[in-house]
Amino acid sequence: MQDTCPTAPGEQSNFFINGYPCKNPDKINAQDFKSTKLTIAGDTDNYLQSNVTMLTASEFPGLNTLGLSVSRTDLERDGSVPLHSHPRSSELLFVVTGVVFAGFVDTNDKIFQTVLRRGDVFVFPKGLLHFCLSGGFERATALSFYNSQNPGVVNVGGVFGFDQERIVNITRSLVTDYDFL
Amino acid sequence: MQDTCPTAPGEQSNFFINGYPCKNPDKINAQDFKSTKLTIAGDTDNYLQSNVTMLTASEFPGLNTLGLSVSRTDLERDGSVPLHSHPRSSELLFVVTGVVFAGFVDTNDKIFQTVLRRGDVFVFPKGLLHFCLSGGFERATALSFYNSQNPGVVNVGGVFGFDQERIVNITRSLVTDYDFL
Amino acid sequence: MQDTCPTAPGEQSNFFINGYPCKNPDKINAQDFKSTKLTIAGDTDNYLQSNVTMLTASEFPGLNTLGLSVSRTDLERDGSVPLHSHPRSSELLFVVTGVVFAGFVDTNDKIFQTVLRRGDVFVFPKGLLHFCLSGGFERATALSFYNSQNPGVVNVGGVFGFDQERIVNITRSLVTDYDFL
Amino acid sequence: MQDTCPTAPGEQSNFFINGYPCKNPDKINAQDFKSTKLTIAGDTDNYLQSNVTMLTASEFPGLNTLGLSVSRTDLERDGSVPLHSHPRSSELLFVVTGVVFAGFVDTNDKIFQTVLRRGDVFVFPKGLLHFCLSGGFERATALSFYNSQNPGVVNVGGVFGFDQERIVNITRSLVTDYDFL
Amino acid sequence: MQDTCPTAPGEQSNFFINGYPCKNPDKINAQDFKSTKLTIAGDTDNYLQSNVTMLTASEFPGLNTLGLSVSRTDLERDGSVPLHSHPRSSELLFVVTGVVFAGFVDTNDKIFQTVLRRGDVFVFPKGLLHFCLSGGFERATALSFYNSQNPGVVNVGGVFGFDQERIVNITRSLVTDYDFL
Amino acid sequence: MQDTCPTAPGEQSNFFINGYPCKNPDKINAQDFKSTKLTIAGDTDNYLQSNVTMLTASEFPGLNTLGLSVSRTDLERDGSVPLHSHPRSSELLFVVTGVVFAGFVDTNDKIFQTVLRRGDVFVFPKGLLHFCLSGGFERATALSFYNSQNPGVVNVGGVFGFDQERIVNITRSLVTDYDFL
Repeated sequence: MQDTCPTAPGEQSNFFINGYPCKNPDKINAQDFKSTKLTIAGDTDNYLQSNVTMLTASEFPGLNTLGLSVSRTDLERDGSVPLHSHPRSSELLFVVTGVVFAGFVDTNDKIFQTVLRRGDVFVFPKGLLHFCLSGGFERATALSFYNSQNPGVVNVGGVFGFDQERIVNITRSLVTDYDFL
Repeated sequence: MQDTCPTAPGEQSNFFINGYPCKNPDKINAQDFKSTKLTIAGDTDNYLQSNVTMLTASEFPGLNTLGLSVSRTDLERDGSVPLHSHPRSSELLFVVTGVVFAGFVDTNDKIFQTVLRRGDVFVFPKGLLHFCLSGGFERATALSFYNSQNPGVVNVGGVFGFDQERIVNITRSLVTDYDFL
Repeated sequence: MQDTCPTAPGEQSNFFINGYPCKNPDKINAQDFKSTKLTIAGDTDNYLQSNVTMLTASEFPGLNTLGLSVSRTDLERDGSVPLHSHPRSSELLFVVTGVVFAGFVDTNDKIFQTVLRRGDVFVFPKGLLHFCLSGGFERATALSFYNSQNPGVVNVGGVFGFDQERIVNITRSLVTDYDFL
Repeated sequence: MQDTCPTAPGEQSNFFINGYPCKNPDKINAQDFKSTKLTIAGDTDNYLQSNVTMLTASEFPGLNTLGLSVSRTDLERDGSVPLHSHPRSSELLFVVTGVVFAGFVDTNDKIFQTVLRRGDVFVFPKGLLHFCLSGGFERATALSFYNSQNPGVVNVGGVFGFDQERIVNITRSLVTDYDFL
Repeated sequence: MQDTCPTAPGEQSNFFINGYPCKNPDKINAQDFKSTKLTIAGDTDNYLQSNVTMLTASEFPGLNTLGLSVSRTDLERDGSVPLHSHPRSSELLFVVTGVVFAGFVDTNDKIFQTVLRRGDVFVFPKGLLHFCLSGGFERATALSFYNSQNPGVVNVGGVFGFDQERIVNITRSLVTDYDFL
Repeated sequence: MQDTCPTAPGEQSNFFINGYPCKNPDKINAQDFKSTKLTIAGDTDNYLQSNVTMLTASEFPGLNTLGLSVSRTDLERDGSVPLHSHPRSSELLFVVTGVVFAGFVDTNDKIFQTVLRRGDVFVFPKGLLHFCLSGGFERATALSFYNSQNPGVVNVGGVFGFDQERIVNITRSLVTDYDFL
């Protein structure tokens, strides 16, 4: 038994398990526990003007069995990550650059929203709908941490059959406190 | 230390904890572990033509610390429980009477939907959006079981500011397999 | 990584794991999450005049990894499910039809017993001995939910080498409150 | 927030929680994490000719929140700890002196039994019925570890209304392999 | 029952529990879920030339019951966070600025070490010894996430009675791959 | 699904999982749940004058999936198990023979230390540094229980590159209460 279980990349099997098989323990090395995939801004040339690069154990082998995952969010000046939820995880958001307007909605439909600037952190409790909008005149970048290896994403807009314009408009309509602008 | 911790009804305190305090162990009796609150159909005289009676540890003391909860859903002939999710629980649905059309949406936006008749069971995985519609010409009643003491309900319609007509229409639009009618 | 892991039926392997392997994700469909096996009364033509149809992930693929299971209990007019326990789960019992006398015994040998009618629910805490008896003049049917994928059943009568008559008599002797008859 | 939470002895409160309140952190000392209560053989002058001294967080403050507990079993030459189960814990048994015949019954009513001598260890899986009998011509002492702070004991003999003679006889009748005598 | 349980600041009580009491639910607001305490570099004018600002539920109320915490590490050009471990949590490190040399030691005394630049992430498995050194010619700042509300810190240098010079020298001696300099 | 999952000894596979595969259920027997490997004192003819024989699921098949493990510690008259921690488990120590001086260090660098005699028990909370020294004029033997199947051992001396003399001296220097000698 071992301390870690980095995901075995390219392992071929007809045997499916809930999670990932481990790399051969003899071949584990420090690079399994490092990822450079969040160093580059994701492609924000899209309607949302945003990008979320999610690293779970399939992209970052060392995360396997550790019970956590991480993502990078890039927001252009008018970018947004509209309403969504993570069915299996809470989230902690850290603003690396720019200004982010973030909020979540509890099970009483009460909205908790605030402005976040460089270095601020905010939390979204497990399974609740939440969103991020760029809140400033510059690009914004945030890092998110999840206390699950497999947080998942429920894109309520997609479920509702909405095009992106619609889901963004709905998300923006939740913002009742414009003081930050 | 004890086997059970029925919720203390009416306990007054300025000290809040995450969950419920226990009843004085000397006063626990069999009635704490029984509820008759699901014997009566809920009031379905509303736009949705449906009612969900949820029993958690605040309404059913004996559930406290057992890690489960239960609800009854009543659906009139055209009743619906539109799209929603439970942030902290999976759900198992059992159809007591009538016909129910049920479905959930996974994190790839794929819909898993089917018709359920008296005695059928269906499961909704934790945190995923799901719905129930009456699928027949009669009233339907279903029982739902949750493997959490506090499943919670995210009403995506409410978050989106939709009136009930709109969320019902959206939910109904998800039904692509009308074979059951 | 995926939201669900329906059991792979008929999967042949010499490799045993604790739980079930998953179905090939490409082949998962709505029927994996539905079961009709509880629609029919079990065969009660036996000494106990009862039947318990248990659905775990081996009979109901969609339950795999969801952390819950379900059973149907049919009781003839004099039927009984004598003393037993579930080593890995609490249980919530819902009476679908008839009258059921149910009880459990805590670790101080105190018995918590009551009469349940159509629509009533009762809970049996994890690992404690409990029982069900038909309490009326008609057949009774109940549904049980377990917050474990693999609750297990300890049949104390069998362990004790008792024939069914004996374990039923012992169980009936626990009933001290006959008001319900 | 702290590393430990020794039980507060004699703490008076009308506020009940599931578990024990912590000692004032300023008053925690090494003695909270030590117990001498297992140094002395329990009183075996009884029909069972055995004694189990269980230490949980109520008798051993330092155990609180650590998720484990411990007991000492003393068996006279003909002593027994008849069939019982722990609803919330597995158990690991270590024989300190003497010879112990131990066994458990799985959920298929299959008995796993063996003879244990000084220094041997045996495990009883969570929630399963098990027993210990002195297997030699001398007194035996064993230590048991539980991976729960509150394992609990279901005394099936008591539930069945059996006197001790009866439950001991039933337990002894399970022993099919007398090779060890 | 509620979705969140922000820590009640300044709550006075003689009743200690394992964790924090919740704020009065009526008074919860968005600011409970936000912290600005990581926006400012910690004071690195010390022998280690480093500072770790840890936010747990006592400094950041909204973290309470969410199962995660966060810290900011500032390293001067020659700064170090010498060998330590977190007894109750894994850690994910994200480099905000500068170059960081990070490593952990598994239970076979094998060292996994690497250089991290702006935007890189690295993980330290639960309970293992690890360290960070500034690896460049500029100040470095990193953010750490923990999947526990109360990770704790074991400062092995302090336990060993070492002064800071000694523990830093020992930590630096672990670095066998100087390629990054 | 089964109650137990004894480790399959000698199972050859190129497929690695986090934990051990199960033995073919048809071949499980009572010997899987018993170990005699702790009956013999380990070889203490070494600098530390001590030996720890650890049984996890790789040496004791029946432990697999039960969530616990066990070890035997032998200490010569001047023997020691110097400072170390278990990254994934608390530990309960039981003194079988002799006198043991035991202690742990909390995350505030406070040392909790005491003398243990035959039959005494002591606990080391999860992830904290702790140690054992022979405290008498005779050999000492202790049994340790862990509430994890895979506790792991962080040998801080090894990490620090210390020879055994050094780590023993450091450990001994922690003992401030010599009353027991």
